[in-house]
Amino acid sequence: MPTVPSQMTLIRVRQPGGPEMLEPATAPVPEPRPNEVLIRVLAAGVNRPDIQQRAGAYPPPPDASPILGLEVAGEVVAVGAEVTPLRTGDKVTALTNGGGYAEYCLAPATQCLPWPTGYDAIRAACLPETYFTVWANLFQHGRLARGESVLVHGGTSGIGVTAIQLAREFGARVYATAGSDEKCAACLALGADGAINYRATDFADRLMDLTGGAGVNIVLDIVGAPYFERNLRCLAIDGRLVQVSTMEGAKVERFDLSQVMRRRLVITGSTMRPRTTAEKGAIAQALRERVWPVLNGGRCGPQVYATFGLKDAAAAHRLLESSAHIGKIALKVAD
Amino acid sequence: MPTVPSQMTLIRVRQPGGPEMLEPATAPVPEPRPNEVLIRVLAAGVNRPDIQQRAGAYPPPPDASPILGLEVAGEVVAVGAEVTPLRTGDKVTALTNGGGYAEYCLAPATQCLPWPTGYDAIRAACLPETYFTVWANLFQHGRLARGESVLVHGGTSGIGVTAIQLAREFGARVYATAGSDEKCAACLALGADGAINYRATDFADRLMDLTGGAGVNIVLDIVGAPYFERNLRCLAIDGRLVQVSTMEGAKVERFDLSQVMRRRLVITGSTMRPRTTAEKGAIAQALRERVWPVLNGGRCGPQVYATFGLKDAAAAHRLLESSAHIGKIALKVAD
Repeated sequence: MPTVPSQMTLIRVRQPGGPEMLEPATAPVPEPRPNEVLIRVLAAGVNRPDIQQRAGAYPPPPDASPILGLEVAGEVVAVGAEVTPLRTGDKVTALTNGGGYAEYCLAPATQCLPWPTGYDAIRAACLPETYFTVWANLFQHGRLARGESVLVHGGTSGIGVTAIQLAREFGARVYATAGSDEKCAACLALGADGAINYRATDFADRLMDLTGGAGVNIVLDIVGAPYFERNLRCLAIDGRLVQVSTMEGAKVERFDLSQVMRRRLVITGSTMRPRTTAEKGAIAQALRERVWPVLNGGRCGPQVYATFGLKDAAAAHRLLESSAHIGKIALKVAD
Repeated sequence: MPTVPSQMTLIRVRQPGGPEMLEPATAPVPEPRPNEVLIRVLAAGVNRPDIQQRAGAYPPPPDASPILGLEVAGEVVAVGAEVTPLRTGDKVTALTNGGGYAEYCLAPATQCLPWPTGYDAIRAACLPETYFTVWANLFQHGRLARGESVLVHGGTSGIGVTAIQLAREFGARVYATAGSDEKCAACLALGADGAINYRATDFADRLMDLTGGAGVNIVLDIVGAPYFERNLRCLAIDGRLVQVSTMEGAKVERFDLSQVMRRRLVITGSTMRPRTTAEKGAIAQALRERVWPVLNGGRCGPQVYATFGLKDAAAAHRLLESSAHIGKIALKVAD
């Protein structure tokens, strides 16, 4: 067990702006509150909310760390007074309340999960954000049931990869959209029953063709307003639109309530960050019981596309913003 | 048991238009299909969809009777070959697939329920449309739970009266809107914890005051687009907007998806008429088990505001369109 230093390196945002605003800095290692653990970070996941936060468009909630980084994997090096059963030396992957782009990071103990069998730190760090998000939205809010079908937008995004895999694993038929034939092929390789290149065709027309006009039970969307009308069109009776991001805008300009009534649609969605520690802990518990056995069995898992050193966080952001990647981007923080 | 004649009197719509288009006519008494019963109608409920259908704005589904009338109470006078356990002579109240404004009316046997204890035909005929609708929307789609709160728009409408009563009976706090102080007093007398005269104040501001800024778990709305933005504003985290009608329009012109995500809202709704016989039967079964014991105990029940003879259906429509009533309007068809 290494001694915990008093100072650490982290990545700070000099001022809201582009990737070039990310720069290394030094700050005191934080101390855990009674319900928290201190993690020596070995790897951290990079996510789109980090980009929004860097740009000043997604201020962290009060009480959260101002440092970027929503997921880490590493080793527990200190535990708060009320923490049980985690102990120093345990290897965990954690959904953080910010602070992941650093050598040391706090997380509520209830937001920590063990590394699945055979995982290294990089793979483990790529789990929390998409697994918490997909579980909460597809299965809890969306109530996806065995034998149902789902359309996953952005099938090769971090969220998309996890959604395709988990939907398949839990007995659903999966259709995915992506922006190139190569990405569509990746979706099919992940287990999607159909993939739609949205640049080559109207995704809603194609989805209705693929489903013989039936539509799907759930649309999991990250695009937002430009897709809204077509998303509703893709839904079968009692279908659910679950919005987990609005990358291309949130302002819908036309919405006909009568179709919601006529086809008994559900429009819902959520974000992870504003949830309480209790809510995040409940999701972690569900993941531990329902999903970690699947990961331990190797049947699902993150697709790690690229890894950067902590000091190269700007390059990681540039890659994520390019959307050239398939799957997850990680920062390797320590060995 | 009276002999079933070959011809009956009914109310037909001469051509789409105002109440004056309703006129008596004669037609053959229909014959039950294997899953149906023939009911000698003693009373029929009058509902807003009847008005829309009369005006040509709500064509009946294929296979449904073209005759107005979605609910009746009466006596079973013939049963289809597959019907069990209903028998001729049974007194039932039925959600029809149209055809209620007539001396005889068909209904699937699974959409029939017994008259609650102490009910006459008029009271029994005023049950199905609002009880099926409120049960399906408030409890099934809306998932109203004990200890939650609900805002009921149009608190003195047929739907509103039933929603206030059932929400209270099943352990929720209820707020209602209505268009006059007299109607607000009626809502409070029905058990509402608060009533808002929407002509005198902004209902959303007032609701937030009444709930100490917390909002409600469910909004049950019949107004539609003009209320949409304020309805969302009234919802607490994880709140549900359940749309059961859009009396003042369905076309929403601005809708910000980000608030749905941020507050994990659910926007949903339904109509009763397009549901399959199996779906309506399942709702009837739930009502039989959960709600009929309450009605038998006299703790909830319809408010019958006015009764007209079958041939005075036009007057019943005029009253309903005036919105001067509180509760239900019925047609008395036979003794």
